[in-house]
This record gives sequence, C-alpha cells and structure tokens, in this order.
Amino acid sequence: MRLSRYFMPTLREAPSDAQVVSHQLMLRAGMIRQEAAGIYAWLPLGLRVLKKIEHIVREEMDRAGAIEVLMPTLQLADLWRESGRYEDYGDEMLRITDRHKRDLLYGPTAEEVITDIFRAYVKSYKDLPKNLYNIQWKFRDERRPRFGVMRGREFLMKDAYSFDVDEAAARRSYNRMFIAYLNTYARMGLNVVPMKADPGPIGGDLSHEFIILADTGESQVFCHKDLVEMGAPGDVDWDSDLQPLVEQRTNLYAATEEMHDEAAFALVPEDKRLSARGIEVGHIFYFGEKYSKPMKATVAGPDGQDRPIHGGSYGVGVSRLTGAIIEASHDEAGIIWPDAVAPFGAAVINLRPGDAAVDEVAENAYQALIAAGKDPLLDDSDQRPGAKFAAIDLVGIPWQLVVGPKGVADGTVEIKRRATGEKQTLPLEQALKVITA
Amino acid sequence: MRLSRYFMPTLREAPSDAQVVSHQLMLRAGMIRQEAAGIYAWLPLGLRVLKKIEHIVREEMDRAGAIEVLMPTLQLADLWRESGRYEDYGDEMLRITDRHKRDLLYGPTAEEVITDIFRAYVKSYKDLPKNLYNIQWKFRDERRPRFGVMRGREFLMKDAYSFDVDEAAARRSYNRMFIAYLNTYARMGLNVVPMKADPGPIGGDLSHEFIILADTGESQVFCHKDLVEMGAPGDVDWDSDLQPLVEQRTNLYAATEEMHDEAAFALVPEDKRLSARGIEVGHIFYFGEKYSKPMKATVAGPDGQDRPIHGGSYGVGVSRLTGAIIEASHDEAGIIWPDAVAPFGAAVINLRPGDAAVDEVAENAYQALIAAGKDPLLDDSDQRPGAKFAAIDLVGIPWQLVVGPKGVADGTVEIKRRATGEKQTLPLEQALKVITA
Repeated sequence: MRLSRYFMPTLREAPSDAQVVSHQLMLRAGMIRQEAAGIYAWLPLGLRVLKKIEHIVREEMDRAGAIEVLMPTLQLADLWRESGRYEDYGDEMLRITDRHKRDLLYGPTAEEVITDIFRAYVKSYKDLPKNLYNIQWKFRDERRPRFGVMRGREFLMKDAYSFDVDEAAARRSYNRMFIAYLNTYARMGLNVVPMKADPGPIGGDLSHEFIILADTGESQVFCHKDLVEMGAPGDVDWDSDLQPLVEQRTNLYAATEEMHDEAAFALVPEDKRLSARGIEVGHIFYFGEKYSKPMKATVAGPDGQDRPIHGGSYGVGVSRLTGAIIEASHDEAGIIWPDAVAPFGAAVINLRPGDAAVDEVAENAYQALIAAGKDPLLDDSDQRPGAKFAAIDLVGIPWQLVVGPKGVADGTVEIKRRATGEKQTLPLEQALKVITA
Repeated sequence: MRLSRYFMPTLREAPSDAQVVSHQLMLRAGMIRQEAAGIYAWLPLGLRVLKKIEHIVREEMDRAGAIEVLMPTLQLADLWRESGRYEDYGDEMLRITDRHKRDLLYGPTAEEVITDIFRAYVKSYKDLPKNLYNIQWKFRDERRPRFGVMRGREFLMKDAYSFDVDEAAARRSYNRMFIAYLNTYARMGLNVVPMKADPGPIGGDLSHEFIILADTGESQVFCHKDLVEMGAPGDVDWDSDLQPLVEQRTNLYAATEEMHDEAAFALVPEDKRLSARGIEVGHIFYFGEKYSKPMKATVAGPDGQDRPIHGGSYGVGVSRLTGAIIEASHDEAGIIWPDAVAPFGAAVINLRPGDAAVDEVAENAYQALIAAGKDPLLDDSDQRPGAKFAAIDLVGIPWQLVVGPKGVADGTVEIKRRATGEKQTLPLEQALKVITA
C-alpha cells in the first residue's frame, strides 16, 4: 500500500476523554473513530489488525474441528423468553421493536439462537459431538462504555457452542477449546494464562478465563509464574485425550480476583508466586443442560431415549483483543505490534520522494517485500523525515526500512526493528534478508 | 471437510412459504435458516458461499484502489438529522432507543457516517480522490420481506463511497467502479449487464444498475444482446482514461423498466433486441453535493477556497447475490454453483464407507484434491448411494468424484460435472487431472 493513496489519519494528540493507553493510541494511530458512546468505526489500519486477529481465531477454530456458521445480529425476543433469560438480562440488552411491533433484540450472545438451530436439525447422538462457532457483531448496552474497544457496546466476538451427549463428552469438547485457545493467543504473540473462573450456578471446574498480563490490566490476578511462559501445545491430535495437556496447566495455581484462594496461593513456592494485573480476552464455560432443558434440545441416545444435550460456550473478544494487545505491547512512541497481527509487516520510508535514485531504491524494496508476502506500506508522502518516523513508530509496524539520499549514495539502507529499536545499516539485499528471515 | 463431521442439514422438501426457487433451494440445501421474518442464520454451506462472494468483491475493490473501512451497524440518529434524511426515510428505517434514551438506528446505508468520517480527517484536494468501502450487515425494515435472502431485512452489502474535488474527477471515480463491477461479477461466473437507472433528483447519466438475467427475475429489462456476452475488461490501468471502456457498454441500449424508452429501443436492430427478466445485484450512483453540502464536507481547492466534495456511492448486494446466482443457475436437481463461488470445489463420494479398499481410494482422492487447493467435501456418511447423489446434486458442488467397490476393483472412479451432467469413468490419476485442470 502506498501511503499517498491510503487513508491513515494519525493524530498528534488523543482526545482527552480517552483514559487508557490503548484507546489513546488507537485514536492517535487512526485505527478507530468513535461514532457514538461505545460504538466505533474501524478505519483502514484498525480494520487490518481486526481482520488478522479474526483470521487467526478462525483458523484455530477450524483446526480444532469447530464449524463456522453466522447468526444474525438481531434475534427474536421469543427465543429468550423460552430460555427464561429475556427478563433476567436487564438493561444491557438492547431491545428493539420493528414496524410490525414484534419484539427483537440485538444479540449480546447467541446460546438461544444456536440451540434453536441445533434442535431443528440434529436428532441422534450419532451426530455428536458438534461445535458450531460464529464471528459476529454483538451489542451490550453498557451503562458506562469506556476504554475504547476494550469495553465498547458494539463489539466483535467469536462465540463457539459445543453439543455433547453427556458430561464426559462435553469435557472432551471443553478440552479441545482449552487447547485451541492456547494456540490462538500464542499465534498472536501473546502470553496468555488460563485461570479458574466463576462457573456460575452449576458449579464444577469447567470454567476458565484467558488472561493477558499487562500493567494497565482491569483486574488483579494470581498465578504460578511457570504458566506465563509455558507456551501453547500447537497442533495436536484433536481426537486424542487432551486431559494431560489441560492438567499440565490447571494443576498450577491460577485464579482471577473473584476466585482467588489465599490459602491455596500460599502453597505455591514463594519465588513462583505472581500477582499481577490482567485483561480477560477469552472465556470458556461448560453449562450442561441450562439451555437444552428449557428449549428441549434433545438427541436420542444409543438406548433410543431422548435426552437434553450437554452444552458449553467459548468466547473470544475479537475487537477487544486489538486494544488488549496494545495494552500489553507499547512504549512512549506508540504501538508495538506482534508480527502476526501487525497491520503491515514492514514500512518502507522514502525520505526524499521525487529524487529519482531514492525513489528507485524505495520502489525496489517495496516490490521485494510485496513479493516476499510481507504486506508492506510505502511511505511516499511529502512529510518531513521526523514526522514520518514518528508516525511509523506510532502505528507500530514491526520493521522499518529507511531509504534516504545519503544511504543510496553509499549503496545502503537503514532498517529498524520496532520492538527493540535496534538499527542496522546494510545493502538493500541484506536488509531484505533480515526482514524476511 | 468430512461430511461425517460437518453440519449440512439438507431437507427433502422446502417449507411451503418459500416462493422462489433460490429460497427453496437454499433452505433445502441447508444453507440458511430463517430466524425471523427476513432475518436468516447462515449455516456452514451458505456461509462458505457468502464468504467466497465477499472475498471476490473485496479483491476487486482493492484492485480498483478503494480502501476498506468498517462502519458499525448502529448509527446515531443525529447524523441523519444533519443530512435531512432521518424523517424522510420512513418505516424502513429501524429506529432504536438505548438505555440512556439516545436515538440510534440500524444503518440501512452509510452515506452520513462515511461523510462524517471524511470531513473529520480530509481537508485538502491533494488528498483526493478517495474511495472508502465497507462490507457490513445492514437492515431495512421491509413491510413484506420475501424471496429469502433476495429481499431480507438484515442483509450483507458492500457499499463504497467516492470523494472528489469536482464532477469531472467524480466521473473518473465512477468509471473505476463501473469497470470494477464488471470484473467482480464476471469472476463469479455471471453475465451481468449494466443498465441505465434512475439518477434521482440530480439527473445526469451517472446511475447504473447491474442486472443478472434470469427467467425468475423480479423486473423486466431491455437491452442490446451484445451486452450479455461482452464480458469484463479484467485488470486495467486504473489511472488511465476508462471512459472508452465504459462507453463501449453505455453506447448500447440497456435500461430497466422504469427507465425504458420504447422509441430508443426500436432503434436497436430487431435481432439484437432482448427483453428479459432481470435481478439487480448492484447499483452505482453519482450524487454530487447531496451530502457534502448539508454536512459541510469540504476540501480546500488549489485556490485555497473550501468547496463541498462531489460524492458517489456504489453498492453490491453480497447476501442477495447468493440467491441471485441460484436463480440464474439451477436445474430440477438443485443448485449449479459456478466454480468460483461453490461452497466446495469438488465432492468425493465414497459409496461404501468401511470397505478398506474403497476407503483408501476415497481418502487418496480427497487428500489429492486438498493438495490441489480444490477445497473438497468427502462424503463418508452411511447414506444410501441414491441419497448421496441427490444431496450432492442438490447442494450444487461443481465436480463429483465417485468411488465405489466395482470401480475400485477395475482401477477406476467416476467423475461428473454438475453443470452438464457429463460423466467419465477414469483411473484416479486422470480423473484428478480433469478436475484440477
């Protein structure tokens, strides 16, 4: 992409009502624009990051055997009356009346819709397990939307729903999602810790939040230090027993503030105890027959008897992740994108557009990076060098390749790694090798 | 994808309220499920087609230099009050009140939002032209939603908006979209004719609808026969003068019913006059200063004076296209997908799952098609052969590769091209060559 033809409106200062650093940086980097309280338009740069995150989430869901569907944003109120949640949900549910006076709502989540789809088509235990997921915009009418896309009202969420014949099978589905989540976040360059979370009224141990550690995190979390660097299993045999891989994590202490047990935490060796701030970026949850019973989502078992299916739901905050990653990865100059979710893989900065020799080297570098699949941005604008460096630092592109008249005369370019600030002056060929390594 | 693990609930009969063939076939093929009047969930097969159409639209927009943004589904009513459209829009606008009693609406289109974004950041003619597009769910509260996704209430639309300094520049932007639209539909395997459409109150010649011909089309259209087979220009130099390519089409007669001129049509040679049914799948439109004037979206010109920008909007009905393509391409047995938008490129039908020799050949065929990028479906289900053939015909997969015990004993498989019904019995290697050619 050539900056002269792009739309990347960076700002010198963030609006004063942006309280957290990710919100400030997303506004300054021209990633988002607020359209109403908690409702954002995604400008080109922000949309690129959002799509890369969405793509990783989709690939890891597919790999784990989940099947993608797409549910509408608007849902019938009657379905929520059937599950009993219509009255319970409160003011966060955006209730809508259409021209024929029918009650609709903007889906804050989709357990009812997916259960209705499931019961319409699936009749036998032989068709299980099934895990259906959906990446769609949702709406929660927060009383006080804040922190930009971290707690917006209209937000993009991946929600998966598993259907199993009994609790043991549901645990296998749960474990698949547990591992898939580890892989998903690891691909985004994040250290994420699964933490025991409130299972709600049905109890049990099958509820985990996935937490990014960040100084600016919204809540206090407690865990064994080894969990932070444990990494993800990667692709596994999804039909195998994943319980050992799950227990490798869940056997170590990790809990959010609301589930924290000071006595259990004291049993962790002192030098391994970590108390830190965290941001929730996913939540997985087994809820048994909570929806299948009232909504009569049953399958015939091997004995021919109908029984309610056992369900779980699995959420990833896709739009929230754009902010959460920035909270975990930035400095005074701006955002530091992990390579896998960066809006552009590299920026070629032409310090003197219009100078034929400089233009030629910059163009060659740009074309070589396109060919290498690095999805580069070419800054061919008329800005001063200082403004160019500041803007590319701000938007957080992982690699910078700077082409100026002095270097071109010497046969070199300068490259800079955004994360470390490390600079090297090299001939173009070698510089490209470093960036595309 | 293995059918035994997939979710493709085909139905023997369509619900009786489905009036048009595309709606019937989409329900029977398990592509969609109605959630409320005019509101559909996309089941896995339907979502695959929707995504392929979306992907083609996106690539052709990018190629033509448009830049993707993403606007929220909900918009502030105040913006529509500023343009003067809030009261005018009538009952088709879904008006919403949030918990703080603010007036929102579910966007039926996004001229106001994009104009507001534009005016916030772009100040100079030097930043023009700009074309920003958006693929997002929209809502129009049709009094009588019908024809399935062809006239739904919640629908996926690509809408692009061009911003230019004057009418001459706006015409160049218009021409780029005109050509990009021809390329977009051609890639989907469609013959689409651009037809003169109602320009609205500002008049002029810059309004075209893009029409698919189909016997079941919603409206009568009239055109010169040469337009139907003229094809698309393909990739062009987008900075060059595209007026000759546009005029090659617009010089021939083509008009929808509302713009039809019997006298002008009579001047077309009789053997070239085509009167047929058509389905609108896109509309491009120049509207000048309609939004920029009331909303004060101005840029400074070369003379330093601010002037309202000249705008155009360009829509593709992405979800509508899934139905429109079926209207144009089906037979008694079901859907016939053009290869580029087919949910799977090929189906491997295993006639005897559990027979080791048959399984092995089917698995080899399946893996070879994956490796060739054909995105195959493997029917490894326990259904009878007749039911399998009927289902794969119904869902319209372009190629079938049938593996049965008799063929395996002879060293052959059978392949069938869905569109023609042509069958060939061949050794597997040759069969794969035909399919992947």
